[in-house]
Amino acid sequence: MDDERYMKLALDEAHKALERDEVPIGAVVVTATGQVVGRGHNLTETLTDVTAHAEMQAITAAAATLGGKYLKGCTLYVTVEPCLMCAAAIGWSQIDRVVYGASDPKRGYSAYGCARQPFHKDTTITGGVLEQECATLMTNFFRNKR
Amino acid sequence: MDDERYMKLALDEAHKALERDEVPIGAVVVTATGQVVGRGHNLTETLTDVTAHAEMQAITAAAATLGGKYLKGCTLYVTVEPCLMCAAAIGWSQIDRVVYGASDPKRGYSAYGCARQPFHKDTTITGGVLEQECATLMTNFFRNKR
Repeated sequence: MDDERYMKLALDEAHKALERDEVPIGAVVVTATGQVVGRGHNLTETLTDVTAHAEMQAITAAAATLGGKYLKGCTLYVTVEPCLMCAAAIGWSQIDRVVYGASDPKRGYSAYGCARQPFHKDTTITGGVLEQECATLMTNFFRNKR
Repeated sequence: MDDERYMKLALDEAHKALERDEVPIGAVVVTATGQVVGRGHNLTETLTDVTAHAEMQAITAAAATLGGKYLKGCTLYVTVEPCLMCAAAIGWSQIDRVVYGASDPKRGYSAYGCARQPFHKDTTITGGVLEQECATLMTNFFRNKR
């Protein structure tokens, strides 16, 4: 499955976050032809910046690679359901498709119950890809923090 | 009025965006003691990055100045109602107060009808400060683009 293959790359990014003792979330942006054009992992502690989420880094990187700020035709893979900030950023980028691993009932965008969706109207969303692996990474991280 | 004084600084930032032919929106972050710790203006075209909104730049700058990612006790002044991405970023930052100038009925956060607000639960919001001046800057910009 292509989705699982790219989610594994997002998981690789999540592990990079974990190595820095950051909340382990990773993301990659892939073009319609399967080229990985952006990668990112959560760096909020390292950069002292609440906006430095994995998706934000990946979107910024992809736009830099492609030389245009819109990411039409691209898919974003992220290990955890995007928060509202990232969902709206994905909306601005006009990414075609979002694939995430684990749900985030507390901080995920869907917890905000928005009447108008934060994504672009043509964006499709798929959840639950390698869900267990993505979720376990988070659960273990927070367990070790307690 | 303190609010108007700081909104004028946000307007100065908006003018910097205008000089670069960017959508003219500016923001500043001010501490409880009145110190300006972050400034930002929209740079989405210059940086080829949909996430480079004025508020995001100002939040990132303020966190760098203060040396901590949370901006408790601070007020963010922005010339236009924040979009959903920026509202949620403001939420993550735990900023105490948001003051904006002009409303944005199309792209402002309130247009999304979120059941749970994107800001932190204790954040207060004030709109309409120097509204006319902030709105005129936007109207003229888009008129010239047509």
